[in-house]
Amino acid sequence: MIDYRRLRVALLGAGAVGSQVADLLLTHSAELADRAGAELELAGIAVRDVHAPRDVELPAELLTTDAETLIVGSDIVIELMGGIEPARGYILQAINSGADVVTANKALLATHGVEIFDAADQVGASVYYEAAAAGAIPIIRPLRDSLAGDRVQRIMGIVNGTTNYILDRMDTEGAEMADVLADAQRLGYAEADPTADIEGYDAAQKAAILASLAFHTTVPLQAVHREGITSVTKSMMDAARHAGYVIKLLAVCERLTGRGDDPAAEAISVRVYPALVARSHPLASVHGVNNAVFVQAEAAGDLMFYGAGAGGVQTASAVLGDVVSAARRHIAGGVGVGESTRAGLPTVDIGQVVTRYQITLEVRDRPGVLARVAGILSEGHVSIATVEQSQQPAAGEAGTGFARLVIGTHKALEQDLSETVTRLAADDVVERVVSVLRVEGD
Amino acid sequence: MIDYRRLRVALLGAGAVGSQVADLLLTHSAELADRAGAELELAGIAVRDVHAPRDVELPAELLTTDAETLIVGSDIVIELMGGIEPARGYILQAINSGADVVTANKALLATHGVEIFDAADQVGASVYYEAAAAGAIPIIRPLRDSLAGDRVQRIMGIVNGTTNYILDRMDTEGAEMADVLADAQRLGYAEADPTADIEGYDAAQKAAILASLAFHTTVPLQAVHREGITSVTKSMMDAARHAGYVIKLLAVCERLTGRGDDPAAEAISVRVYPALVARSHPLASVHGVNNAVFVQAEAAGDLMFYGAGAGGVQTASAVLGDVVSAARRHIAGGVGVGESTRAGLPTVDIGQVVTRYQITLEVRDRPGVLARVAGILSEGHVSIATVEQSQQPAAGEAGTGFARLVIGTHKALEQDLSETVTRLAADDVVERVVSVLRVEGD
Repeated sequence: MIDYRRLRVALLGAGAVGSQVADLLLTHSAELADRAGAELELAGIAVRDVHAPRDVELPAELLTTDAETLIVGSDIVIELMGGIEPARGYILQAINSGADVVTANKALLATHGVEIFDAADQVGASVYYEAAAAGAIPIIRPLRDSLAGDRVQRIMGIVNGTTNYILDRMDTEGAEMADVLADAQRLGYAEADPTADIEGYDAAQKAAILASLAFHTTVPLQAVHREGITSVTKSMMDAARHAGYVIKLLAVCERLTGRGDDPAAEAISVRVYPALVARSHPLASVHGVNNAVFVQAEAAGDLMFYGAGAGGVQTASAVLGDVVSAARRHIAGGVGVGESTRAGLPTVDIGQVVTRYQITLEVRDRPGVLARVAGILSEGHVSIATVEQSQQPAAGEAGTGFARLVIGTHKALEQDLSETVTRLAADDVVERVVSVLRVEGD
Repeated sequence: MIDYRRLRVALLGAGAVGSQVADLLLTHSAELADRAGAELELAGIAVRDVHAPRDVELPAELLTTDAETLIVGSDIVIELMGGIEPARGYILQAINSGADVVTANKALLATHGVEIFDAADQVGASVYYEAAAAGAIPIIRPLRDSLAGDRVQRIMGIVNGTTNYILDRMDTEGAEMADVLADAQRLGYAEADPTADIEGYDAAQKAAILASLAFHTTVPLQAVHREGITSVTKSMMDAARHAGYVIKLLAVCERLTGRGDDPAAEAISVRVYPALVARSHPLASVHGVNNAVFVQAEAAGDLMFYGAGAGGVQTASAVLGDVVSAARRHIAGGVGVGESTRAGLPTVDIGQVVTRYQITLEVRDRPGVLARVAGILSEGHVSIATVEQSQQPAAGEAGTGFARLVIGTHKALEQDLSETVTRLAADDVVERVVSVLRVEGD
């Protein structure tokens, strides 16, 4: 039996993740001590209501409503309360009292990360947040450490389990979004108020964190372009499948080179939107609530990290990995290694992004329409790669007078594309712009 | 312009990986300094012959044949010579002179890892080896740090690109191994002497490293059961495809619970062999020279890490990530965090492993044969899950007098299975044991 140094651990929050973290800390204490080289003493668990029902039974004597007192004298503070305040205040208190911090709070890091990391740098503390980026998938250390000598060109991530579950079932079952969402809520995969997930807020927070790490640049949440999945319909899903694609909500973080007059000037784009992904792309095979982060680096080439993006016990695994790392650092001595943000790349507006698009139009079924549409695209500097005319009336049916045009473009500037779509929508021959989707990953 | 502290970096070896590392250190020096918080000064490159031709042109004034002198006064020593000696001696010299070490030398770590890690612990140095486990795929930090608070149950890795390339082409093209191997050698995917790859030695070294990390236990190379792919034939490949499987060379690292009389006693099994993997398993989609490591952990669930397993520039990415980590540690101060091996789990012999099997027999085509075969299996404690009789003569053809039986078993003890196969082979009704393959991943 080794006589380990004892480290005092304070846990803030005992929800789905927090209660699992507490349980694992208590039941695996001997094993964790061997791993960390230090005994991890759970000093207390700060909660709003000590009598609230919990997923896991926790020792009553550890529960307290007084987080501030609990933090005093702690070596490691685990923040799993979520939200901005009081989490921010407690984390700053912990850092300033010399503790290392472990957090899964993506909303807080995406909005107040700079303040928190700066505070940690000032005192030589460390902030660990593996669980804030892609749940149980280890992605922080690969980006921050393993790829620190490489240049990340692009990240495409499926980082929200709820929306992937919804889109996957719409794809595989041909279901309507409303029905799948109701199911997801019943199964606990979606919140009663699903806004944060289906409007892409959760994915945007994670995108900001991933981009900051990948490009060694502070990326504020406001710099992330965000579109949710509510515009995705069953018929868009069906059309995508027909064309060899699947629609996924992607967090795309991209390095752009050769901006403006300087061919060496670099910038980054960070964006969240539903996009067409080719069936043959590894991301197309990510089903259900699973997450995956696809990384393209200059030297390492293509990498993919796959796993559970959420779930109490899964996320607890990531949190405990951070706790062990924090403990090892305490034992090893030295100051914390701060975030690497010196690249300081500017972020560009969505209008400056270059991707391929698929535009679906309902047009009048009469001669000269295709020439007219092609002319508008050409004037707008949008080059056509493929055109398919579909949904013509079957033989024997009465014509509706409309046809559907599915146009795949070559790479185009979003600003050009957007202006062109506006002109298309206003043109006589176009009845309706059915959908405009970006194509990613090829 | 920040005035960074300067760290002296010595590079040993300038082969496919080493020359790329040197090139990236020189061309990306400003960017690497920003990432590391220290200037990485490449002090010299030790080679056997300063005039030898190289993949990348390197400054002549950096080349030296005197590694020992180069190491003196270095902060970080990168060992990319390969082989046991003199690499081992140089690494120990570097550690004892206070340097941190970065190495991609899997053969050395799998055989002399304990000596090297102990030497580093003695002086508080760190040894980094991301490139030694799965090339460019970041797997060391996820196992050592991210999953340090979890319990890994099993790893299944495709960790050798050469054999995956060969098996993949045999599968997708129905090709013969000899033809594909010749192609692989022409393309540079296989060595002129392919023994280390196709006999599984390379995979076994990586398996020992992965198992050591995953189970916090020193796993000596001798404890790894190793079988290569030379026994895999085109007809085995075809039969596997027909049955919904693909044959992959897997490195399997498994935690076994409930050994002997103690239900809580744990042990580990580490083994490399060609195995049947269901087509629906994520590992079945790993094509060409790519690698992937599939990890099952108690809390985190299923994770997969995918990417390039080899290649000079890809592996250089992993090496440089380690160099940046070493530099950050130098700047942060503190001692190196040693390997976590205190779990000290025993490794079991292959005979104690429990898996499913697929046994293919050529049997005499006469009544009572199946009953006889089933009887032998039952006596040997091997339970049958499925039986398929195939390759019977087509209508109109003359019978050969033989039929083929493909038997899928339930989970069985390898020792029981092995004894049973010996009895089957000796029995009158069995003409030939065509193949015995383990089934992994379900």
